[in-house]
Amino acid sequence: MTRAAAWLGVLGVLAAGTAWADEGMWTLNGFPAERFRQRYGESPSAEWLDHARLASVRLAQGCSGSFVSRDGLVMTNHHCAAGCIQEVSTPENDLMAQGFRAERIEDERACPELEVNVLQEIRDVTARIHEATHGKSGADFGQALRAEMSRIEAECAQGGRWRCDVVNLYHGGRYDLYRYKRYQDVRLVFAPEDRIAFFGGDPDNFMFPRYDLDVAFVRVYEDGKPARVKDFFKFSAQGPREGDVVFVTGHPGRTMRLLTVAQIEFLRDVLYPMTLKVYAELRGILTQFSREGAEHARIARNDLFYLENAFKAYHGMHKTLLDRDFQRHKAAEEQTLRDRLSRDPSGAEALAALDRIAAVQERLRGLLTEYWLLEGRGASFSKLFRMARTLVRWDEERTKANEVRLREFRESALPSLTQSLFSTAPIEPDLEEVQVAFWLSKVREHLGADHPVTRLVLGRDSPEDLARTLVRGTGLADPGLRRRLWEAGTAATDDPMIAFARRLDAAARAVRKTYEDEVEAVEDRESEVLARARFRLAGTDTYPDATFTLRITYGTVAGYREGSREVSPVTVLRGLFERATGKDPYALPPSWERARDRLDLDTPMNFASTCDIVGGNSGSPVINRRGEVVGLIFDGNIQSLGGAFWFEESVNRAVAVATPALLEALAKVYDLPRLVRELTR
Amino acid sequence: MTRAAAWLGVLGVLAAGTAWADEGMWTLNGFPAERFRQRYGESPSAEWLDHARLASVRLAQGCSGSFVSRDGLVMTNHHCAAGCIQEVSTPENDLMAQGFRAERIEDERACPELEVNVLQEIRDVTARIHEATHGKSGADFGQALRAEMSRIEAECAQGGRWRCDVVNLYHGGRYDLYRYKRYQDVRLVFAPEDRIAFFGGDPDNFMFPRYDLDVAFVRVYEDGKPARVKDFFKFSAQGPREGDVVFVTGHPGRTMRLLTVAQIEFLRDVLYPMTLKVYAELRGILTQFSREGAEHARIARNDLFYLENAFKAYHGMHKTLLDRDFQRHKAAEEQTLRDRLSRDPSGAEALAALDRIAAVQERLRGLLTEYWLLEGRGASFSKLFRMARTLVRWDEERTKANEVRLREFRESALPSLTQSLFSTAPIEPDLEEVQVAFWLSKVREHLGADHPVTRLVLGRDSPEDLARTLVRGTGLADPGLRRRLWEAGTAATDDPMIAFARRLDAAARAVRKTYEDEVEAVEDRESEVLARARFRLAGTDTYPDATFTLRITYGTVAGYREGSREVSPVTVLRGLFERATGKDPYALPPSWERARDRLDLDTPMNFASTCDIVGGNSGSPVINRRGEVVGLIFDGNIQSLGGAFWFEESVNRAVAVATPALLEALAKVYDLPRLVRELTR
Repeated sequence: MTRAAAWLGVLGVLAAGTAWADEGMWTLNGFPAERFRQRYGESPSAEWLDHARLASVRLAQGCSGSFVSRDGLVMTNHHCAAGCIQEVSTPENDLMAQGFRAERIEDERACPELEVNVLQEIRDVTARIHEATHGKSGADFGQALRAEMSRIEAECAQGGRWRCDVVNLYHGGRYDLYRYKRYQDVRLVFAPEDRIAFFGGDPDNFMFPRYDLDVAFVRVYEDGKPARVKDFFKFSAQGPREGDVVFVTGHPGRTMRLLTVAQIEFLRDVLYPMTLKVYAELRGILTQFSREGAEHARIARNDLFYLENAFKAYHGMHKTLLDRDFQRHKAAEEQTLRDRLSRDPSGAEALAALDRIAAVQERLRGLLTEYWLLEGRGASFSKLFRMARTLVRWDEERTKANEVRLREFRESALPSLTQSLFSTAPIEPDLEEVQVAFWLSKVREHLGADHPVTRLVLGRDSPEDLARTLVRGTGLADPGLRRRLWEAGTAATDDPMIAFARRLDAAARAVRKTYEDEVEAVEDRESEVLARARFRLAGTDTYPDATFTLRITYGTVAGYREGSREVSPVTVLRGLFERATGKDPYALPPSWERARDRLDLDTPMNFASTCDIVGGNSGSPVINRRGEVVGLIFDGNIQSLGGAFWFEESVNRAVAVATPALLEALAKVYDLPRLVRELTR
Repeated sequence: MTRAAAWLGVLGVLAAGTAWADEGMWTLNGFPAERFRQRYGESPSAEWLDHARLASVRLAQGCSGSFVSRDGLVMTNHHCAAGCIQEVSTPENDLMAQGFRAERIEDERACPELEVNVLQEIRDVTARIHEATHGKSGADFGQALRAEMSRIEAECAQGGRWRCDVVNLYHGGRYDLYRYKRYQDVRLVFAPEDRIAFFGGDPDNFMFPRYDLDVAFVRVYEDGKPARVKDFFKFSAQGPREGDVVFVTGHPGRTMRLLTVAQIEFLRDVLYPMTLKVYAELRGILTQFSREGAEHARIARNDLFYLENAFKAYHGMHKTLLDRDFQRHKAAEEQTLRDRLSRDPSGAEALAALDRIAAVQERLRGLLTEYWLLEGRGASFSKLFRMARTLVRWDEERTKANEVRLREFRESALPSLTQSLFSTAPIEPDLEEVQVAFWLSKVREHLGADHPVTRLVLGRDSPEDLARTLVRGTGLADPGLRRRLWEAGTAATDDPMIAFARRLDAAARAVRKTYEDEVEAVEDRESEVLARARFRLAGTDTYPDATFTLRITYGTVAGYREGSREVSPVTVLRGLFERATGKDPYALPPSWERARDRLDLDTPMNFASTCDIVGGNSGSPVINRRGEVVGLIFDGNIQSLGGAFWFEESVNRAVAVATPALLEALAKVYDLPRLVRELTR
């Protein structure tokens, strides 16, 4: 274990000779019992862990949650359910602003795009994958890897009965098959007003002390009835106390603690600067768009929230990458690895892998702009375009064998894909037009007006005019049309957005193929080599980088030092009222103003713990040793953003809503005895 | 000279053993005659240089220009006169869109904020400055330096008769006093439509080949009559040809070729990333604001142009700083300097200076955000706030002796300061409100909602509400009120913007003082030490970093290689019509559509040369050996943006409008025989 620490190098506390840090996003079949025991005493039992796994859920769109009643009630964050809340809103009935409470079970409202997954089984498929890719490299390696993954997933899924994902852990060190139960009938039960869910708004996001009620309850249904579930977390009325040992189960999205220096430099010098500039500009556009009237503010709110959230997260991550302590640490860590590999009789291959990973970053630098704008994040700002592309590509992909399709069209992915494609969520043309125009203008700006791709995309049109033509002319806002085109193909339609997606498709597929064959496949293969060498040098007793799969982490409810100030770990309701100014984002909703005198102002509201989480953990339960939920993760402090790259236990904090505030609010602000009973029975 | 090259290290061509590169922004009293002769034969005479100096002008707001007739006619860029063009526009009469032509001399229109300077004399005041600062360090050094500069300037200015600036050259290696004749009665003579002046808009900005008519003519007046000038450039009807040797005189704003590695890293990792993000967001806001209607587009156009221009320039500069070839080069250059200093018996002080400059960057990293937002660029987005701050500070500064005032209030600066303060240019409340709100929101975002400065700035208000209160409540849009408050003081007014500026003033002055005493003064002093050591090691036969003072540079009309493509150096009018799509920013104004058949389409339009320029050179004349103007600098190619840090002759190109296109357009598109006669007589 000390050897593992040496190459992981992210275990800063260890180096100082103290006990194990709370670092680690552990798989549920890899809980570090001995490590936990050394710091905190008795370790959770296998039954406890199985129960925690089955009571934890994943929101497939990118969040976590947990069952909190036997009737399929799921607790997650308001910001995780915001898509649904927005989708069931109308101009006249803005549920983001007003909140939503289903007084009776029949008032619960369908969320057209939510999918809930519960992890049933983990199976090691490393041997099978390695066999399929053995002796291959470059494009061959990548194609063989994707094909075998699709094959394994299709076998497991049994025609859509299960959701099955092959998960690449330790950057190729291990491949596990995750089999989930899938719920697609998910209904909204309760959401507070966004003013209290996201009190403090962007300025307080990633900050602590904090005063948010970032909660939503949804319920999963089976055959039109609330699903009965065996495993769920009991609600703790007492909540968290400073010094308590707590656990978080959930789905951290992505960490990059095992990347090489060359990969880190690519992020620092190329990807993040570009992303930050593009996001900043779009943020400005959506900010001003939102000022153009209440309806524009309503329809842009969710996109603006996610954009600002991502912007701040990238900003924090970039800051860590620019931090010279981090840079020195990372360089030293890699040098140590190189030194050990040089002394290792079979280290040459891994040393070569390090160099090949560095070389491929050069290729990526040349390719990134085009890839990002045509096929990556840059091409995804518009829902209508994404749908058009899906439909156009399905024409071709449906004719191919499962294992050679683009990954998002593999059989096992179709249920989620079509749920989203056929969603009845409204599409807002004003907002779409702005987003399409923005994307097109960035294509021209980043590639240049004379680049063949720019000419292909724009022709002789301007971004604004083309965006208007496409958005006003398309019929794809109608889910019925999308379903018909999915079934019958797009050949017969003259829909302009479909035609546009078709015009781009050869170029977009080409750059994707180049990326997959010349970058991704090389990185995947060489990272595997590196992972095997690391296992050989340091053992396997460590945790893999986050992959939006279920993990468990543990820690202590604890404050921290910020400059000269001691930050205490638990806030209470009184602080909320003190912080409120009456001006957004520090304005309270009327319900809270009215309830103030009824509330116990000493009730714990938010709290910080040393649990090692990142984005994707939003909605995770915080549970105590007895398996009761004491909190609901909704954020990390600003120092936690560096957690993508390393874990600094002294300041990295997970931030959660305390259960006592939830119960107090449901009872006294929202008058929902039905829900309080369900949570506490 | 080879030794100079070794420490300058920016002379890439030299290292390969070829002739001198065209690098260098030479002072008019430091023209490198021998160096020029070696590459191009006979060097310009002292008379030629004197004439060029007196025929070159500076637009004090940040551009260059030249006299092109004996009647005080000044040629500059459309984008340099855009402030004026916008200021004399109205919603009904949008001169940016329509262009402006003064058919008769009495139609010429006053530009309320333009000031034109003509350099009369350069005097070396190094000894006097050194005497004043001798033996001092830290805050004492900075205060003594500023005081002595203000004293010298006041003596020279003779109560406002001259404009006098002490210029710090070679980062303290030399101090020169520049004495200018100043014209403040400047009138607009001609400006084309912005569609042709800035054809291709932001996408084509910093690109080549190019097709812009980025020209404006203004005229300086004395005693209400056109000023008679002895020195002016004759207009060449023939224009430039590939291979011609050409000169550019003008006022490059700022280069940073002599910065240390630590200073460069500060820019790369701190200042530029922050600036780029803030500019990108404001760009998004102004872009969307401009879509809200023709009037919003009109009033935001100029700000948006300058913002996008700056954004692209920072982007290009940042790209150079992230370039690994540049990084290696810079590190090697500094290592060479350190090695030589180590061997130099008196090198210890300069080595210590390098370390102190590095240490002060750490201080700056901690200080930057607050400084930038309260006192630097971040606090300057709103005209109304800038004016309020000037008025509030003048109350105090007027009571102080000249040499201890804040630099912008020194006696010699007052004519320019008051010209701008009393300007009759309209102020647009809609735009102001957006800019103030943006600034306030960035204060909160970057410092945090709980920072004392944020609380001081916002109180319990929101950025939007406070911006509205300040902008709608202030009377400062009235130049008459500003004049009265300047004269009588602000004590008696309850104007909300004045009150706001006053509320911030102690904190803003404090952070400025910290910056000046603990950063600027240290950098200034230690840079002086370094400059002296460099002179000692390598001689003085080199050029100083740009300082927005008059320089001359020379080169060849020449194309370059871009990837696999040879870019030819001269474009012709035909290319303009081929590039036009009818959609902005590639739409031609109607005047050009109408004139098309009358034009000689083989007329040279824009051209590239190897002259070493940067921002501030906009509006510079390109002159041939005979002293005739053959072009008008308006841009550099994208590769030239790295010129802030190093000069790469193979690709760095200055971009200019060719005089034949100017004459062709004035005659056949704009039907202005008066102006053609004046230029060609």
